[in-house]
Amino acid sequence: MAKNKQLTKRSEDFSAWYNELIFRAELADHSPVRGSMVIRPWGYAIWENMQRALDDMFKDTGHQNVYFPLLIPMSFIEKEKDHVEGFKPELVVVTHAGGKELEEALVVRPTSETVVMSMMAKWIQSYRDLPMKLNQWVNVMRWELRTRLFLRTSEFLWQEGHTVHATAEEAEEHTRVMLGVYRNFMEDWMAMPPVTGLKSESEKFAGATRSYSCEAMMQDNKALQAGTSHFLGQNFSRQFDVKFQSEEGKEEFGWNTSWGVSTRLLGGLIMTHGDDRGLVLPPKIAPTQVIIVPVKDLDDGSVLEKANSLCSELKAQGIRAELDSRDFLSPGSKFYEWERKGVPIRLEVGPRDLENNQVVLAQRVVPGDSQKKEVLQQSEALRTMSKRLDDFQECLLKKAVIRREENTYRGIENIDELNEIMSGSGGYVYTGWSGDPTVEQTVKERTGATLRCIPEKEFRSSECPVRCIGGEKKSEMEVVWAKAY
Amino acid sequence: MAKNKQLTKRSEDFSAWYNELIFRAELADHSPVRGSMVIRPWGYAIWENMQRALDDMFKDTGHQNVYFPLLIPMSFIEKEKDHVEGFKPELVVVTHAGGKELEEALVVRPTSETVVMSMMAKWIQSYRDLPMKLNQWVNVMRWELRTRLFLRTSEFLWQEGHTVHATAEEAEEHTRVMLGVYRNFMEDWMAMPPVTGLKSESEKFAGATRSYSCEAMMQDNKALQAGTSHFLGQNFSRQFDVKFQSEEGKEEFGWNTSWGVSTRLLGGLIMTHGDDRGLVLPPKIAPTQVIIVPVKDLDDGSVLEKANSLCSELKAQGIRAELDSRDFLSPGSKFYEWERKGVPIRLEVGPRDLENNQVVLAQRVVPGDSQKKEVLQQSEALRTMSKRLDDFQECLLKKAVIRREENTYRGIENIDELNEIMSGSGGYVYTGWSGDPTVEQTVKERTGATLRCIPEKEFRSSECPVRCIGGEKKSEMEVVWAKAY
Repeated sequence: MAKNKQLTKRSEDFSAWYNELIFRAELADHSPVRGSMVIRPWGYAIWENMQRALDDMFKDTGHQNVYFPLLIPMSFIEKEKDHVEGFKPELVVVTHAGGKELEEALVVRPTSETVVMSMMAKWIQSYRDLPMKLNQWVNVMRWELRTRLFLRTSEFLWQEGHTVHATAEEAEEHTRVMLGVYRNFMEDWMAMPPVTGLKSESEKFAGATRSYSCEAMMQDNKALQAGTSHFLGQNFSRQFDVKFQSEEGKEEFGWNTSWGVSTRLLGGLIMTHGDDRGLVLPPKIAPTQVIIVPVKDLDDGSVLEKANSLCSELKAQGIRAELDSRDFLSPGSKFYEWERKGVPIRLEVGPRDLENNQVVLAQRVVPGDSQKKEVLQQSEALRTMSKRLDDFQECLLKKAVIRREENTYRGIENIDELNEIMSGSGGYVYTGWSGDPTVEQTVKERTGATLRCIPEKEFRSSECPVRCIGGEKKSEMEVVWAKAY
Repeated sequence: MAKNKQLTKRSEDFSAWYNELIFRAELADHSPVRGSMVIRPWGYAIWENMQRALDDMFKDTGHQNVYFPLLIPMSFIEKEKDHVEGFKPELVVVTHAGGKELEEALVVRPTSETVVMSMMAKWIQSYRDLPMKLNQWVNVMRWELRTRLFLRTSEFLWQEGHTVHATAEEAEEHTRVMLGVYRNFMEDWMAMPPVTGLKSESEKFAGATRSYSCEAMMQDNKALQAGTSHFLGQNFSRQFDVKFQSEEGKEEFGWNTSWGVSTRLLGGLIMTHGDDRGLVLPPKIAPTQVIIVPVKDLDDGSVLEKANSLCSELKAQGIRAELDSRDFLSPGSKFYEWERKGVPIRLEVGPRDLENNQVVLAQRVVPGDSQKKEVLQQSEALRTMSKRLDDFQECLLKKAVIRREENTYRGIENIDELNEIMSGSGGYVYTGWSGDPTVEQTVKERTGATLRCIPEKEFRSSECPVRCIGGEKKSEMEVVWAKAY
């Protein structure tokens, strides 16, 4: 595959564009094991930046990191009825170890509620040990038949938070706090504004009492469930005997939450901001925020020297600047490469710039004209860089919000209308719903859209729709429909 | 187990002391799966600090982080003859996934050379792609029959670095650079000074051409192999076809290195610095460097308020200070808890201190008198804290170096003398060696000591011993013997 060959256009084949972008931006690769991916340095560096930001937010909300084992006894998974039903078809099973067949099969964790609860039962004695708020950054496996890099892979990286609280109210409250943390992260760091809300019964996590999710709209107008937060009630506590002595001296079961985001976020990032030239990175999570490319050096090496000193000055400001000093690539090839990789700002320095104390600045995305370059005094470039990066970040978020709103439909009253939108450009469609699961099923079969969530108040229409989309019954709530990944 | 019960003394039963310390300091716990451990918040926070320091050192030496899949096809492991021989007995095998039996069994990675090389073969075309220097922080599994928390567990966390170079010289050089990085980390951050050197043929990594290691001496005078760095030659490159076009246009195989440290380091940390009261943490990796304990508050809450403001002022200096404001524990219980957990410095604030602008300072380890407290002006405590932490760090390293030297024996000329030392207090014994592996085997059988390494120059005796420890042959090199974990 020629490295500088143009990507398939999004408008022609969004899915081909997505795959090509991942390979060309060197984010990830297929591994020799079906459905497992290799995350390459550029993709992993983005993930590390996302991890660090989220991890700080988790610590600020009182969580501690831990590590629970990869392998879980099959009998643990089977304890919670809904949990095993949901996960059994996807389990990866270890039957042999150390040259012998195991007495009990072990499962590679698809998620860790069961083993976490089994240990919490040992650690928690009294209300004074509560709340217990743990998190771990780990790999998990859910065997998938149809896989797509980042979006659906048999192995993925994620964090899973697990908490125990003394009361249902506190646990429910915490579930929503973490939903809010995810939303803030997606908006502030990824410039990917989700709609947040409650999942319907049929879409909730296997074992949860209530699930909340962040639903981000991709550029093909499909929804990506980008993060979930679950109120688990006492479902797991009762199976694993997570009890505590209350302030009143009574023995009670704990109330649990769990919540997670995964490397799927990288798929969301690509499909939120990427364009026909490649990836576009929000500065806050870009491994390199400013790439400096020397254009043709003089014999005395003074262009490279200047480029180097600009780089150091930007770094001294805390900006992630890099100098591309490779001597076997043309400036043009470098421009393409860093564009493909989504670096927000490029500085070019050539012999003429040296004379005039100038520098050429190109932004990866400029509203109106994405190829426009600016010629600036070097001092001005240095002085304004931090502000430019902030503006770039803000601009991405604004664009994403506008795109979401432009592809949102309200006041739709029946399945035919919904179907028309879904057969066309797609989008988020807000309608009334009676709460009847057969309506959910009918909509899915007829339109391909699923009930993404019962949105939180701020996303709802000014007046709750009167009629259920199913037609016959009265609406009990407003819901959002969309095709989804 | 009563929380404030004293630990078994090291001098009575070092192994019981080690296990008890881990539980009492809440570093880790046994999991429901045999041989796998749960790393609890305090243990994990130490590991995170160690990770961050090492990761910075890896990035400073030009490495990029990546993620390779957990599961490796059995056929990959079998490609390198020595590799499969070394690892086969410990493999954890997945035979079923997604409800079906797999066509080819998959192995939970015991280490990732094979899958890394298979991908590098795709990514590397020319000498311009070299060196390729990758690292990953992951979990690995090696099934163990006799396990000990941190030291030998079926699953552990580690980092594994994998590099490809154009020449043997460069790869060998890099192997030693990374050995040096490990040594610096152990000395500067963990205050755990290892002896570094080359492994003998019988002790090298399965698949390596040459292995180097860091051998740290524990308080029971046994050696802990705490980090290894391997020159792999072209052993894996040839099996996985990692080829590149050289500057001269010839097709050549790449030269590889791999190197790793694991959660085993936590075991080393405990056994290097721990005492009969619990863990002792070097400030540079302590999650909490200064714990502030309010002793009896006044009605107006002014003691707690002062403790809080001292904590904020320390934090503003970049010191990891925490306030223990729990109201259901006595100050004494708190003192014990933070001592067990190894926090370097404790500040106590009571009503009388408030009046006099004083504070009571206790160091976890004070040379000469470990229980001594100082009464200080608050301003002085704040002003000198950073220096005190530096001194504490330095003091731990010095103590460890002295202990290692006190338990090092040179000039030993035969197996009987070596056996006498090993049957007594143990230690590191330097002797001559002909290089004959049968001598190595005999020493092991007769004394229980193994050949830890052929030490680097600075550790060697001023003159190389003349006689081989085996007696008959001439010595070709100096080696270090010790019992080992």
